[in-house]
Amino acid sequence: MGEFDLIARFFQRPAHPAGPQVALGVGDDCALLQPAPGTQLAISCDMLVEGRHFLPDVDPATLGHKALAVNLSDLAACGARPLAFTLALALPAANEAWLAGFARGLFALADAHGCELIGGDTTQGPLNICITVFGEVPVVNGKRQALLRSGAQPGDDLYVSGMPGQARLALEALQGTRSLPADVLPPLRARLEMPTPRVALGLALRGVASAAIDVSDGLLGDLGHILQASACGATVDTAIAINSIAADADSTRPEVQFLMQLPVEQRLALVLAGGDDYELLFTAPVAARAAVQAAALASATPVTRIGHIETAQGLRLIDAQGQPVSGRFASFDHFA
Amino acid sequence: MGEFDLIARFFQRPAHPAGPQVALGVGDDCALLQPAPGTQLAISCDMLVEGRHFLPDVDPATLGHKALAVNLSDLAACGARPLAFTLALALPAANEAWLAGFARGLFALADAHGCELIGGDTTQGPLNICITVFGEVPVVNGKRQALLRSGAQPGDDLYVSGMPGQARLALEALQGTRSLPADVLPPLRARLEMPTPRVALGLALRGVASAAIDVSDGLLGDLGHILQASACGATVDTAIAINSIAADADSTRPEVQFLMQLPVEQRLALVLAGGDDYELLFTAPVAARAAVQAAALASATPVTRIGHIETAQGLRLIDAQGQPVSGRFASFDHFA
Repeated sequence: MGEFDLIARFFQRPAHPAGPQVALGVGDDCALLQPAPGTQLAISCDMLVEGRHFLPDVDPATLGHKALAVNLSDLAACGARPLAFTLALALPAANEAWLAGFARGLFALADAHGCELIGGDTTQGPLNICITVFGEVPVVNGKRQALLRSGAQPGDDLYVSGMPGQARLALEALQGTRSLPADVLPPLRARLEMPTPRVALGLALRGVASAAIDVSDGLLGDLGHILQASACGATVDTAIAINSIAADADSTRPEVQFLMQLPVEQRLALVLAGGDDYELLFTAPVAARAAVQAAALASATPVTRIGHIETAQGLRLIDAQGQPVSGRFASFDHFA
Repeated sequence: MGEFDLIARFFQRPAHPAGPQVALGVGDDCALLQPAPGTQLAISCDMLVEGRHFLPDVDPATLGHKALAVNLSDLAACGARPLAFTLALALPAANEAWLAGFARGLFALADAHGCELIGGDTTQGPLNICITVFGEVPVVNGKRQALLRSGAQPGDDLYVSGMPGQARLALEALQGTRSLPADVLPPLRARLEMPTPRVALGLALRGVASAAIDVSDGLLGDLGHILQASACGATVDTAIAINSIAADADSTRPEVQFLMQLPVEQRLALVLAGGDDYELLFTAPVAARAAVQAAALASATPVTRIGHIETAQGLRLIDAQGQPVSGRFASFDHFA
């Protein structure tokens, strides 16, 4: 199958209605986007490589979902509404079953967010998926509404959505370094392979949050980016953070029960350093606590207040008694 | 070297002034673009893979140039002014000398076009370069000025810039299937490895050309895309096309002399089917002939009128006597 046949067969959907911002979609030298007046275009780009970002035997439909989800997560962290995306795909061979599955997973998520495929490239090569995503975020009275990493202020509260660490737990099981009960792996695996980009929460946090980032590399590492960009420090209450699962799910669910009975040190490692969850980590003024809860409710997304921002540089982890956490997470200085 | 160090060291240039359309560049979850009022954003995306788009031993500086050039060429074909780009890079290892060379070639071309790196991704993996480029093209009185493939009309003239085929000749020499004199290879190799995106010509053709495409796959193949999108046919005067080199360069230059003395059948193959030249192939009404020449002059880009568009579907190749060309190029039906 040639390149043009492949594009036409799996990725061109002429019957699909484009939003008014998509002036021209797939099929010419360029696509044309026309953001609404008074808005900025938020742009993010992620490249996924086999063996590094996904396992070789992953279901192509979940891969299609995840490749777009990690990009939508960046829009979410920015408070941008998804508009469109480009897809560049290097494939070892044109495997039709694989492509059909990939396209199905990709478009299911794209359609759920009204995000249109407007162009891209396909080529022969080692499997590589590169998506660039476009979202719209308003400028109100000359002030951009986009949520940046740099807006955190001393005194702000620190929040995380859902419970980071679940994807990492699934990865450890799939890599064979941990065994999980039969009823625990599937829901955790879904967190790893089919992450939910927190787009609705990001939109609801416009004008509420002072800074935001998505948790792709691990909570503490990504918090480090906020602290560096905002030139401040933070204290994280680890006892609250490792119980954020309670905010995320019915406590009778088997994966929740399993997580809650893990040793504290393991729960700390999962929540603070596990990556690939694509939750939102964000800050907001104390005065905005009610607004944050309203945003969580409006977006049906659990949110937990896990700490606060401080003038003093660096990161402090405290336990339930307010004492510094010792051991592996006592110092996390890679961003100091 | 970690991912963040690598980005900071080779790809973050805080001192570089961004244009007013770049509201936020590298370093957050998203970049922010704000196209000028009354414009559309033209977007294109190309992925380059080692062994398929470039040879493993290519100079990294020329590769940096080419990776951006092929994307700028898509903007040129659309008549868009370059604004910004994202770069996703999979690297087998963080080779500092390679990265420094790549960044040098990339930014030299980017700076020449005022095109700002606003974001991207780096990861470990088989060498893969994916660039998504953004340009601006006005909408005047509700009518988009972007040049599309679909605008050709029966009766329009057909033009090509420069002389396609030179890159292919260099490729054949580098692959060992053809030997070239010592003074001929370097200028041809530059055409292959350091193509000049015809951005100035594309801008000058706004409101003049009726359709345009860049010649990346070969003149006839890319003409086929125009004919298909515009639902018409064309006649190409091959005697003029194979002499387009005369429009492109001083006839005393060694590569020109070499090309002109090749057998006609070889010159036909190079001009009509050689790829990777990134010239512009475009159509314009007969009434716009003076305007086309003015555009060529204003952009200092040689342009040759090589045929015309017709109502009758399909492509007809004629020789200097107006007779159908026989042999290998008599029928070119892969787009019929």
